[in-house]
Amino acid sequence: MMRVAVAGAAGYIGGELLRLLLGHPEVEVVGAVSSRFPGKRVDGVHPNLRAVTDLKFCSVDNVGECDAVFLALPHRVAMTQIGDWVQRSKLVVDLTGDFRLDEAEVFRRYYGEEHQAPRLLGDFVPGLPELHRERLRTADLISVPGCMATAGVLALYPLVARDLIDLESGAQFDARTGSSGSGATAGPANLHAERSGAMRVFAPTGHRHEAEISRHLGLSAAMTATGVEAVRGVQTICHATLRPGVDRQTVRRAFREQYTDEPFVRVVAHQRGIFRYPEPKILLGSNYCDVGFAVDEGTGRLTTIAALDNLVKGGAGNAVQCFNIRMGRPETLGLTFPGLHPL
Amino acid sequence: MMRVAVAGAAGYIGGELLRLLLGHPEVEVVGAVSSRFPGKRVDGVHPNLRAVTDLKFCSVDNVGECDAVFLALPHRVAMTQIGDWVQRSKLVVDLTGDFRLDEAEVFRRYYGEEHQAPRLLGDFVPGLPELHRERLRTADLISVPGCMATAGVLALYPLVARDLIDLESGAQFDARTGSSGSGATAGPANLHAERSGAMRVFAPTGHRHEAEISRHLGLSAAMTATGVEAVRGVQTICHATLRPGVDRQTVRRAFREQYTDEPFVRVVAHQRGIFRYPEPKILLGSNYCDVGFAVDEGTGRLTTIAALDNLVKGGAGNAVQCFNIRMGRPETLGLTFPGLHPL
Amino acid sequence: MMRVAVAGAAGYIGGELLRLLLGHPEVEVVGAVSSRFPGKRVDGVHPNLRAVTDLKFCSVDNVGECDAVFLALPHRVAMTQIGDWVQRSKLVVDLTGDFRLDEAEVFRRYYGEEHQAPRLLGDFVPGLPELHRERLRTADLISVPGCMATAGVLALYPLVARDLIDLESGAQFDARTGSSGSGATAGPANLHAERSGAMRVFAPTGHRHEAEISRHLGLSAAMTATGVEAVRGVQTICHATLRPGVDRQTVRRAFREQYTDEPFVRVVAHQRGIFRYPEPKILLGSNYCDVGFAVDEGTGRLTTIAALDNLVKGGAGNAVQCFNIRMGRPETLGLTFPGLHPL
Amino acid sequence: MMRVAVAGAAGYIGGELLRLLLGHPEVEVVGAVSSRFPGKRVDGVHPNLRAVTDLKFCSVDNVGECDAVFLALPHRVAMTQIGDWVQRSKLVVDLTGDFRLDEAEVFRRYYGEEHQAPRLLGDFVPGLPELHRERLRTADLISVPGCMATAGVLALYPLVARDLIDLESGAQFDARTGSSGSGATAGPANLHAERSGAMRVFAPTGHRHEAEISRHLGLSAAMTATGVEAVRGVQTICHATLRPGVDRQTVRRAFREQYTDEPFVRVVAHQRGIFRYPEPKILLGSNYCDVGFAVDEGTGRLTTIAALDNLVKGGAGNAVQCFNIRMGRPETLGLTFPGLHPL
Repeated sequence: MMRVAVAGAAGYIGGELLRLLLGHPEVEVVGAVSSRFPGKRVDGVHPNLRAVTDLKFCSVDNVGECDAVFLALPHRVAMTQIGDWVQRSKLVVDLTGDFRLDEAEVFRRYYGEEHQAPRLLGDFVPGLPELHRERLRTADLISVPGCMATAGVLALYPLVARDLIDLESGAQFDARTGSSGSGATAGPANLHAERSGAMRVFAPTGHRHEAEISRHLGLSAAMTATGVEAVRGVQTICHATLRPGVDRQTVRRAFREQYTDEPFVRVVAHQRGIFRYPEPKILLGSNYCDVGFAVDEGTGRLTTIAALDNLVKGGAGNAVQCFNIRMGRPETLGLTFPGLHPL
Repeated sequence: MMRVAVAGAAGYIGGELLRLLLGHPEVEVVGAVSSRFPGKRVDGVHPNLRAVTDLKFCSVDNVGECDAVFLALPHRVAMTQIGDWVQRSKLVVDLTGDFRLDEAEVFRRYYGEEHQAPRLLGDFVPGLPELHRERLRTADLISVPGCMATAGVLALYPLVARDLIDLESGAQFDARTGSSGSGATAGPANLHAERSGAMRVFAPTGHRHEAEISRHLGLSAAMTATGVEAVRGVQTICHATLRPGVDRQTVRRAFREQYTDEPFVRVVAHQRGIFRYPEPKILLGSNYCDVGFAVDEGTGRLTTIAALDNLVKGGAGNAVQCFNIRMGRPETLGLTFPGLHPL
Repeated sequence: MMRVAVAGAAGYIGGELLRLLLGHPEVEVVGAVSSRFPGKRVDGVHPNLRAVTDLKFCSVDNVGECDAVFLALPHRVAMTQIGDWVQRSKLVVDLTGDFRLDEAEVFRRYYGEEHQAPRLLGDFVPGLPELHRERLRTADLISVPGCMATAGVLALYPLVARDLIDLESGAQFDARTGSSGSGATAGPANLHAERSGAMRVFAPTGHRHEAEISRHLGLSAAMTATGVEAVRGVQTICHATLRPGVDRQTVRRAFREQYTDEPFVRVVAHQRGIFRYPEPKILLGSNYCDVGFAVDEGTGRLTTIAALDNLVKGGAGNAVQCFNIRMGRPETLGLTFPGLHPL
Repeated sequence: MMRVAVAGAAGYIGGELLRLLLGHPEVEVVGAVSSRFPGKRVDGVHPNLRAVTDLKFCSVDNVGECDAVFLALPHRVAMTQIGDWVQRSKLVVDLTGDFRLDEAEVFRRYYGEEHQAPRLLGDFVPGLPELHRERLRTADLISVPGCMATAGVLALYPLVARDLIDLESGAQFDARTGSSGSGATAGPANLHAERSGAMRVFAPTGHRHEAEISRHLGLSAAMTATGVEAVRGVQTICHATLRPGVDRQTVRRAFREQYTDEPFVRVVAHQRGIFRYPEPKILLGSNYCDVGFAVDEGTGRLTTIAALDNLVKGGAGNAVQCFNIRMGRPETLGLTFPGLHPL
């Protein structure tokens, strides 16, 4: 059994990590760190874990050496604690925003502050198995991308990798997200009466995940982020322009080739059916990212669509997938829940 | 024009009072009191009033003499400020829980504290036009009932008034409510990710509105209150036992007789149709309370159903209806919005 | 009193027309035509109209001469019946898709069939008061735009009219819509268990409203349409590129100038606040279209946002506004409901 | 591997059976029978099973001998096909309403028709492990109870079994349910625009599950059933009267004793916390039934609360649990998904 700890275990990503790791057949959870609730039962905060675990939250000092630690801390905390965690654990998987960008200058622009550990920025391997599987096999520091970034990148990467996109035109991303992405801390904006039924543009320009998409795809991404009525779930739409002569079949082939062996990416672009394009609700709890596309052949305009559960493939599940890869285990261990329909 | 003020104008009931009073053809709003936001524009807090009003919140000291004041204050504040308001305004319409019960002892049991103005308890006329219209015509102090109490009382009163119910068996009320009933203050329980899709029993026994129902109906009411997925809307189900020999026709006649001339109560008990029983969603924004019933003639068991918008007939609209009565105006002034379908 | 009829009165747009027209102070509804439910009470289909009207649906033959008729028919029916309606009524306001485009060829491309009355296409004045108010004052044939088209057009028109947009780059529209836009006919795609919580891309390219936007703005619009969790409500996001040198202040001035006297367009682009950009939920039942914008000055990218209630400003309300204009009445008659908050 | 088939595999219960059985470590699914979609891919109807299975629906004639068949057929079909299935399969697990009652006369009253196989009624063992585990070990015919019946029974059984309830007063059940309980067939009542946000009393009296509760508890149950906004999830509230002298501690002890060893029943009755009483949303996808209670000691009134996922513990999961028992396997095989939080 591999010994793992979760820091920030009382948040939503932390809870999802616990759900997945407690159900992982080769993992022992040796610490669920919460600075707010040390000593309190884990299932008092995550009621879905009642009868599943008797674990209690602990403080950081109670965590001994471990094989891996997952950081689900508030943004800005990870970069100040990173030194400690590196000493305690062979592998650090960070799920915060702190190490997602590789340039301190870009970090400053998007996060509005100085990075506290800029020299480490280049040492983190992006937690994107579909782009960086080989590097992940030996990584000691992994940074899991933002939920909208993972969706956005996976929905355009097959075409960028094959140079099928007109990079001059850039790419416009429209991301929609449920409320769990804002975390477990109550405030006026996520009060149920205000947030319910919302179509709330909270970042018309300049969202942090935009910088990640630009980095991973090597193009100029413009992203708008909107909160819609959902608790879990992210969907990204991407508008781009195909290079002259690229048709629907070429696009389809690119997607198929890219993802045919991927355990957690499905190409969903059907002619008919209610769920003919990717949609988050049937993915909730699962580690799938579904990707699809449509081509307007008259104009060469491309629309791609991606969907995932922001707490799973957009966070905790993706982290466990990376962990499995790093540990040389089957990639799908502990990640086989297929999602529910209807839901 | 009648001069009116609203105290607690930044809350949800306060905002609904402003919406109704600003649209009332014979009213001038002379004060929107908020201790949190004095000087701030009203439409900054209530965005539906953009372009409708340029009003700003004021502090209590800015309110001069007025014809009526509506108190939409936090519970417990009204009973400490009541002396001041009586001096400022000919009519005080209280929408808090402070003056809904007429006995200090019952207040203590249900609210868990001493009443601060017990001698005034008997002076408030209940803001239930359907039961107390004549008294309301001359009232100077009016206490608008709780939203679930109004629904529960209206759905059983026609039968109680005609002695058709077996009082020994009591009455079991099952109340469901949207999230706006908890007010505009954010906390863990009304965080969207937690509250969304809820079926949350927050008061299995002993809810305060239970005491009001018992008072107005003169029987022993037992109420369970559950939060369900909705922002606005209250529905109450009542289980009771008919006296021997009382059949469906007698029940139907009682409802028809009682409410045929009521401008804001509709009897909804059809044989077919999607909306054959009362349902809140088509009432949102309107001042209607729909009531219906079903009789199991084999056993003499009765089920009644009531629905309303908790912020309108369950609060602000009911208050304006009482105000219209008191001022000798047509009862429906400013209250004619019929509700939306679909919604 | 003006005598008006509604054809297709049992649908969702038809019901909304009835709600508005029955509440209109200078209108008498002389016919609510439904081929499915002749003789049936209107409030049996539209339960929000209980106690508001005793009207019954009639067949088309029961409608005598009238001052105006509103066609809320299924697509394709209006263009076959148009000859009849022109004879019966001085003014025909069509809310279907049949006369929204002015070229038979474009109609064929987007609707996939031949137009049945192509010579009339040029006679209809677009029901967009903000663009065509003067022409509407004398129009006898009015075609109300699609809900997503109205939102999309209003959110970009001030900039197009002032030549502030780089037309070469086109404009990418991302439209989100509630389920009522699909109408009142049940099918697998709008079954609650399937449609609930959806983020469903139903038209990644080639939606019919795209053609209207292109027509009214004179540019190449690309639109993606997604169904999200809501019954009512449309929101459009538009990505475009500003001409070099156009900054945020210029954009803001354009919006202010364009809409300062418009009774039903509000510019919503604030620095802070939950509702700082346009959002449909606070507009439900109201005739407002809120529009807003954000500028990324570093790149010259523009994002505009529009929101409306698809059944009101996106349909019935807009139609009544056009009718008021044509009849020389105050534009806001019967359209003053401000919307609800919270909802 | 045990060979199992599912009849009615294209419905919602059928899809959930497939999800669970395909993930069951000791089961091979040898037939997914659908009369509507023979030859069509299963994942075309149940999109959550994409990449999980290549199975296609088959017709009943393609199913050979098997160890168990699960009937998720439309009501009334199971009792006409039962003879066939008994010949094909050693074990028949029926999930329809056809064999839930043991008296033809009660069936006639609640279902409004004659039973087609009345002599078999007594041969079915109720699929309630918590009440009938020993009989299930050897059963060849199992009838899984209705979703609301399972919830209602489990929430009162510990007290009935210990004679703590005043049977004279009967028990009033208030059941709330999501839309998936109505099945996958579209109709006006479950159109999203109508069903969304509903609080719809569809059975104020006489619901069929009422008869099951009365049967299993041996008392006179009165049930009201309401559709609320949810796709999955059932919650039942029960009002009953305790025998004199029975206090809260006795009630608590009864629940603890009854369910301490049950793998899928959790007692949830805490003093504080958002999820202090049973609530379906954190159970979706899981096989748990959470039960809780509250006692008003002054009056002796009892409120019990139960929650489950209607498609899992209220259907497919409960069926698999019964199957595991019958086959002598560990009861939790294939049923370990714990549910999600938040959701």
